[in-house]
Amino acid sequence: MIKDWLSKSAGDVAEQLIARNRENESDAAVAGFGVKDRVYRATELLRAAMFPNVFSDEVIPEACLPTFVSDNLQKAAMLLYGVISEVFCYTCGGDAPLGGTCASCEEKADQAVCAFMDTLPEVSRLLNTDITAAYLGDPAAKGKTEIMLAYPSFEAVSIFRLAHSLHVLGVPLIPRMMTEYAHQKTGIDIHPGATVGESFFIDHGTGVVIGETCTIGKGVKLYQGVTLGAKSFEMDENGNPVKGIKRHPDIGDRVVIYAGATILGGNTHIGDDSVIGGNVWLTHSVPAGSKVYNTLSNKERS
Amino acid sequence: MIKDWLSKSAGDVAEQLIARNRENESDAAVAGFGVKDRVYRATELLRAAMFPNVFSDEVIPEACLPTFVSDNLQKAAMLLYGVISEVFCYTCGGDAPLGGTCASCEEKADQAVCAFMDTLPEVSRLLNTDITAAYLGDPAAKGKTEIMLAYPSFEAVSIFRLAHSLHVLGVPLIPRMMTEYAHQKTGIDIHPGATVGESFFIDHGTGVVIGETCTIGKGVKLYQGVTLGAKSFEMDENGNPVKGIKRHPDIGDRVVIYAGATILGGNTHIGDDSVIGGNVWLTHSVPAGSKVYNTLSNKERS
Amino acid sequence: MIKDWLSKSAGDVAEQLIARNRENESDAAVAGFGVKDRVYRATELLRAAMFPNVFSDEVIPEACLPTFVSDNLQKAAMLLYGVISEVFCYTCGGDAPLGGTCASCEEKADQAVCAFMDTLPEVSRLLNTDITAAYLGDPAAKGKTEIMLAYPSFEAVSIFRLAHSLHVLGVPLIPRMMTEYAHQKTGIDIHPGATVGESFFIDHGTGVVIGETCTIGKGVKLYQGVTLGAKSFEMDENGNPVKGIKRHPDIGDRVVIYAGATILGGNTHIGDDSVIGGNVWLTHSVPAGSKVYNTLSNKERS
Repeated sequence: MIKDWLSKSAGDVAEQLIARNRENESDAAVAGFGVKDRVYRATELLRAAMFPNVFSDEVIPEACLPTFVSDNLQKAAMLLYGVISEVFCYTCGGDAPLGGTCASCEEKADQAVCAFMDTLPEVSRLLNTDITAAYLGDPAAKGKTEIMLAYPSFEAVSIFRLAHSLHVLGVPLIPRMMTEYAHQKTGIDIHPGATVGESFFIDHGTGVVIGETCTIGKGVKLYQGVTLGAKSFEMDENGNPVKGIKRHPDIGDRVVIYAGATILGGNTHIGDDSVIGGNVWLTHSVPAGSKVYNTLSNKERS
Repeated sequence: MIKDWLSKSAGDVAEQLIARNRENESDAAVAGFGVKDRVYRATELLRAAMFPNVFSDEVIPEACLPTFVSDNLQKAAMLLYGVISEVFCYTCGGDAPLGGTCASCEEKADQAVCAFMDTLPEVSRLLNTDITAAYLGDPAAKGKTEIMLAYPSFEAVSIFRLAHSLHVLGVPLIPRMMTEYAHQKTGIDIHPGATVGESFFIDHGTGVVIGETCTIGKGVKLYQGVTLGAKSFEMDENGNPVKGIKRHPDIGDRVVIYAGATILGGNTHIGDDSVIGGNVWLTHSVPAGSKVYNTLSNKERS
Repeated sequence: MIKDWLSKSAGDVAEQLIARNRENESDAAVAGFGVKDRVYRATELLRAAMFPNVFSDEVIPEACLPTFVSDNLQKAAMLLYGVISEVFCYTCGGDAPLGGTCASCEEKADQAVCAFMDTLPEVSRLLNTDITAAYLGDPAAKGKTEIMLAYPSFEAVSIFRLAHSLHVLGVPLIPRMMTEYAHQKTGIDIHPGATVGESFFIDHGTGVVIGETCTIGKGVKLYQGVTLGAKSFEMDENGNPVKGIKRHPDIGDRVVIYAGATILGGNTHIGDDSVIGGNVWLTHSVPAGSKVYNTLSNKERS
């Protein structure tokens, strides 16, 4: 009976659950982080600092704007300083308790946070080129305000560019949590390690996957369901995927890739100004100005 | 050091971020809306008015139902009156401050909100046909309650039909924010401009895209990953997409479109009672009663 | 005018909306559940009990862990006892008022909740095999912590395994609400009726659909956009889908299925150790060790 379960069994099951995670060396699960919510909050504070009235819950009057933005930046910096210290310390081998931090990791985090915060004006500049690209790239867009308030591309890329900026500074784990947060919101999955040029636009976006070692030039436009991924056979001798090598394609400037196209492999380069058609499957390079279409045919009975 | 960054640099970076948005004419980002949260709240109030115990957080006892529904309608109307006034005034050219409203825009908003609120019984009627269609259309559905509580189709279409009703009344921006809210929840992206007949059902739904000028008949069923989109080459002489023309297909009554099919173009008409197979790519019209399947073949090695 | 609408029309529209749901026999919508939020909260409490510092908002210090876990288990059990009693009673034909519960349904719920809570250590064991499989299966994964904090596969499967465990105990409706909650977060749609072996990993995941009667062996890896679904022609004489039969495929041990592949039909069996390539469309069985690739070709103009 539930009355007995609540008073007697709950404690036993709790013990078993805790023991299970320890066995599996998932120690972060039982004692450690509690970090997701803080990372998501920092992300929203940073977006609201860059685009106050887009990401704030209330209207920020003009006169309050400098204080609002500056306050958001300070709060985000403090949150990030905490979580980045903990993340560094999780693998530093020092003697801080799990979830705690040591002086050396705090110093590394301090440097990373300051360097990161100083990249925000450049992140904001890039995002403004992305807004313009979306407005020019979609006939249904009525204005830049609509892009900021109702486009999944801006939702995802505004988080990705923050995550990439942290990733480049050598911060582990946090950037991946940020892009997975964007993935949950939009269905657009961009690894924070990917390098993406300015004026980037993804229309609709659901199902887009952009891999860790991908590079993307300027003015590129993607549609929903595009995969820029790894070939399947890059495995080591034990049949496990090889870690840390170049596995994903390079996309040139002003390339357009239509819905559902799949481009795979670390040696695949798509030349500038190419157009890749819907559902195309491509595992080799094509020169600048290429047009690649699918010859897939249908059978009709009417 | 972060101590110095917080006290000295935060203000400088804040200034740079604000200046950046002004340069890019993204003035709504720095002074203006703060509208997303209010639009999402209004949407949830309206859904809870139409389907109280589906969208409410707590159980609403029978005796309290009329008051609960009426109260939700009033709150939604007030929220919408505010945001619609602001959205009209953003582009009216009057002398109200950014984010403020003028008497003329308030009057337009007043009319739009009243007209919209009076469409709710019809929206509710349509959604009840959609619930029945989902129940009849999915062998895994155990009852109508399950459709309302656990089907992405109902989640997305219940928001889309509200958004479309506002769109038809000439309200800008807000309908797109509503359907993008649905897109974030479900992976189903329906432009509020699309016209969708009764008894509509989308199974699973992730990755579905339905474009702005699409029309869909009665009793249509779609599966996940279906695109009803624009052809790629509808560009103007500068290579930009042409705005405001018919770009998306017309789907007849009782058409079934299986997963991953792509139907493109403003002149493409799918006749009544047609069946379009999985992954089919279609850019021309087919007559009533057509069956279109993919001839895609596989190579097997065992 | 809105002033009049608020004071006069709101009540009329409310009455029409309530009447509409009654007509459509959607009585749960107007008087009954209010269950979604409680189901989602129970799900999060259970995940935080299994992986405390992954799903908690704050850091749980080591010393507080047993109490935190035990407390979460108790809260989840109480919530589930309430909602499961209501769900049983909704269709029991007894004379409890809608949304109320009778003694017989309370007893059934009591048994189901206790049995379910005792499966949690096994659910946790399975999830730990899934974490290891994800770490070994993705070259971009830097550690198990990253899998737990930033992988959609863990997000979806940690909810699915809870839902499946409830489903097996005969609890209606709630398991589907749980997996749809996972679908909203990840774009991964797994029906709670599916049977999934240990060491399961879905990379990226957006657009994955796994049907109700699907069985999946041990050590299976899927990529985004994979459908394990029903064939289109399993209809009854009225053209409606047949309910309650085996409609979805069986996948053997250690099978890998690449992005966008579609495998359909209740008689389709994929033999152990097979590899199914990207975008493959498969509606018949293949023996163990098969490799199935797409012969789709492209046309290039450069």
